[in-house]
Amino acid sequence: MRDVAIIGIGCTTFGEKWGSSFRDLFVEAGALALEDAQLSGEKIDAMYVGNMSAGRFIEQEHIGALIADYAGLATHHIPSTRVEAACASGGLAFRQAMIAVASGMEDIVVAAGVEKMTDVEPGASTDTLTGAADREWEGFVGATFPGLYAMIATDYMHRYPLTREQLAQVAVKNHYNGARNPIAQFQQEITINTVLKSTMVAEPLRLFDCSPITDGAAAVIVAPLERAREFTDTPIRILASAQASDTITLHDRRDISTLDASVAAGQRAFRMAKLTHKDIDLIEVHDCFSIAEICAIEDLGFCKKGLAGRLTAEGETALNGRIPVNTSGGLKACGHPVGATGIKQVYEVVQQLRGEAGKRQIDGATIGMTHNVGGTGATVAVHIMGVD
Amino acid sequence: MRDVAIIGIGCTTFGEKWGSSFRDLFVEAGALALEDAQLSGEKIDAMYVGNMSAGRFIEQEHIGALIADYAGLATHHIPSTRVEAACASGGLAFRQAMIAVASGMEDIVVAAGVEKMTDVEPGASTDTLTGAADREWEGFVGATFPGLYAMIATDYMHRYPLTREQLAQVAVKNHYNGARNPIAQFQQEITINTVLKSTMVAEPLRLFDCSPITDGAAAVIVAPLERAREFTDTPIRILASAQASDTITLHDRRDISTLDASVAAGQRAFRMAKLTHKDIDLIEVHDCFSIAEICAIEDLGFCKKGLAGRLTAEGETALNGRIPVNTSGGLKACGHPVGATGIKQVYEVVQQLRGEAGKRQIDGATIGMTHNVGGTGATVAVHIMGVD
Repeated sequence: MRDVAIIGIGCTTFGEKWGSSFRDLFVEAGALALEDAQLSGEKIDAMYVGNMSAGRFIEQEHIGALIADYAGLATHHIPSTRVEAACASGGLAFRQAMIAVASGMEDIVVAAGVEKMTDVEPGASTDTLTGAADREWEGFVGATFPGLYAMIATDYMHRYPLTREQLAQVAVKNHYNGARNPIAQFQQEITINTVLKSTMVAEPLRLFDCSPITDGAAAVIVAPLERAREFTDTPIRILASAQASDTITLHDRRDISTLDASVAAGQRAFRMAKLTHKDIDLIEVHDCFSIAEICAIEDLGFCKKGLAGRLTAEGETALNGRIPVNTSGGLKACGHPVGATGIKQVYEVVQQLRGEAGKRQIDGATIGMTHNVGGTGATVAVHIMGVD
Repeated sequence: MRDVAIIGIGCTTFGEKWGSSFRDLFVEAGALALEDAQLSGEKIDAMYVGNMSAGRFIEQEHIGALIADYAGLATHHIPSTRVEAACASGGLAFRQAMIAVASGMEDIVVAAGVEKMTDVEPGASTDTLTGAADREWEGFVGATFPGLYAMIATDYMHRYPLTREQLAQVAVKNHYNGARNPIAQFQQEITINTVLKSTMVAEPLRLFDCSPITDGAAAVIVAPLERAREFTDTPIRILASAQASDTITLHDRRDISTLDASVAAGQRAFRMAKLTHKDIDLIEVHDCFSIAEICAIEDLGFCKKGLAGRLTAEGETALNGRIPVNTSGGLKACGHPVGATGIKQVYEVVQQLRGEAGKRQIDGATIGMTHNVGGTGATVAVHIMGVD
C-alpha cells in the first residue's frame, strides 16, 4: 500500500443554515478544501462522500453523482461514490478515499461529508435518525437515539462511579472548546448548572447532554504521500485507518456500556500505526451524547473502564490537560450534521497538527486520532494522523 | 495493485418476495456465496453492500452494520460498508471490494447488493426511485424514470433509424434469455406483439419496455488472485474496474441519447484490461428500459451510434449472436432490485465464464463485461472479467 497524506481541508460553519441547500453546503466545503490545497477542480481524480440519509431528509439519493455535478466536475466524468454508515458515514468516506489512493487506483481524492437536517417537518429528524438503529427491533417499539444512549448511561452509572456532575463536565468542556472554534454551532460557554437545569430528554440525559440537529459539510483532500509536497508544505500523513462493526441493536451486545467496535477499531489502529496511547497528542471522539465521550475515552484505552468521569472532572481532557479530547467542541458544541461529522473530526486534527487551531491550539501537537461512531456503536471508524 | 479474483457467487431468486424481508434476502444470497466458495463466515475480512434506498423503502439506514450482524459476523467486528449510487449501487460495491483487496487492506471481501422494493404503499416505489434523478430539477416538476428514459427514446428515434419493432426486440430477446434463467422474475417468452400491445407507460415506452419493481439480493466474494485457488478451481479474474459520473439531470447533458459516462467508463475499462471489443464474449448491460440497452451497446462501442436496433433485430445480440447481450435476461426479465442488479450482472458473467449457465451458456466464453448505470447515466460502472 502507498502512504497517503492529507493535502487540503475545508469546512462550512455548522448550524441551522436556512439559507443553504444540501448542494450549497457541499460546494462550499469542497471549494474551501480546493483553495486550501491550492488545487483546481480538474486535478481531482475521484470523490467519496459520507451522507446518512439524504433519501429521507431531502428525498434525494445518488449523492455521489449529485455532488460531482454541483462541484463542476461532471464533465470530467470522475468516479464519485456515496458511503453510508449512519453517523459514521464521514469516517468511512475518509477511509475509502484513503484506500483508493493507497491502492494506486486514484491519486488526488476528495473525501467529503454533508447532511442537511433542519429543513424537515417537526419530528422527522428524530424518526429519520432512528434508521441508524434497528428499525424493526428498536425503532418500531419506540426507541429513539436519546433513549438508547440513556440506557447506556443508566447501565454505566449503575456499574461505575460516574457522577451526574462529572457527566455534565463533558458538555461544559466541549462548549468551552466550541466557543473557540469559528465553525461551531454553539459558541457559548456553559456551566455544570446549565446542564443540570436543562430539560430532561431521556433520563439521565438532559438537553445539554445531547448533540443538536445541524446542517453542515466538510471536505478533505488526500494524495499519495510522495506527491503531497506538490500541494502543501504541511502534509499530514494518515498513519492508520481502522473500521469495525458490532450488532446493530444495543440489546444484543455483550456489554451495553462498552462499545466493542470502538475497542476493536482502536486496537487495530494502534497496531497499524505502531504507536501507543502516549504518542497521541489529541483525540476527536464521537460525543453524540455526553455518555458517549466517557465510553469512547475508555474503549479506546486512554484510561481504565469507570475512570473517564474523574479524568474529565480533573481537567485531564481539557485543552491544557494530559490528553485533550474534542478540542473542536465535539459533536456537542460544533453540532452534528451526521454525514459531515467524521470529516469535520479530521478537519480539526489537521488544523491542530498544522498549528492553525488558534485559541484551541494544543502546543506541539504532532499526532492526533479521530473516532467516529455509527448508531449506538454498530460501526466505528478510527484514524490516526501525524505531521510528516 | 494486487490482482483480484472472484471466488464465490450467490443470488436469491428475483421477484415479488412477500415472504422475505430485506434481511432475509441478503442473508440468503450471502450464504449461497459462502457455500459456493466453500468458505465459513469467520474467514471474511470485510463487506461492501450496494443499496439504493433502504432509508425510504424500509426506513432503515446503516445497512453495512445491519447485514454484517444478520450474517452472523458482528462478533468478528469486520468492517462493513454501504455504498450508494442509485441503480449503480451494486456495481460500485463490487468496485470498492475490488479496490480494498487490490490495496492490500483486506483479503477476503464480500460484495453484495440488496433491495426490498415491493412492500411499500402504492406509488411509493416510483417516487423513491425519482431520488436517483435530480429531485429539485426533475422530480419536483413531475418527471419519473419512465418519463426520463422516454425522452431519451424520443430523441434517439428522431435522430437515428430505430424502429418500434427493433426496440421491442430488446425485450423479446431478454425474456427469451430470462426464460432460461432460474433466478429471473419473468420466465415467459414474449413476442414483439406482446410489447407493442402492452399498456403505454411513457410514449414511446410501453409496459414491456420497462424493467419491473423487484425484491432480491446477490453476493460475490473476492480475494487476491494469488490466494484464489485455495477456495475454487475456477477463479474469475477482474481484468478492469472503471467508474464514471455525469450531470445528474438529463437536460444538462451534451447529448441526451448518448450516455457519456458509459462512453468514459467503457474506454477506461478497455484501457485498463488492455483488451478490445473483439475480446469480449458477452456483456451484461443496464437495460432498465429497452432504449437503455440500445444506448449501452453503442456507448460501449460494440457498434456505431444508430445501429444497435438493427444489430438486435438481426439477432447479433442473442445467445447465439456475435456479441450476446444480457444472457441473464437483463433487468427486463430478471427484474431490477436496484442495489442488487450490479452484483447480479457479475453473478451472470461468472456463471458464463465457469460454463455453469445451463440453457443460456455461451460456448467457450472466456471474457465478459458488466455495465451498471445509476439514474439516467450520472453514474456508470464497467467491469471486465476473465477466466484465469
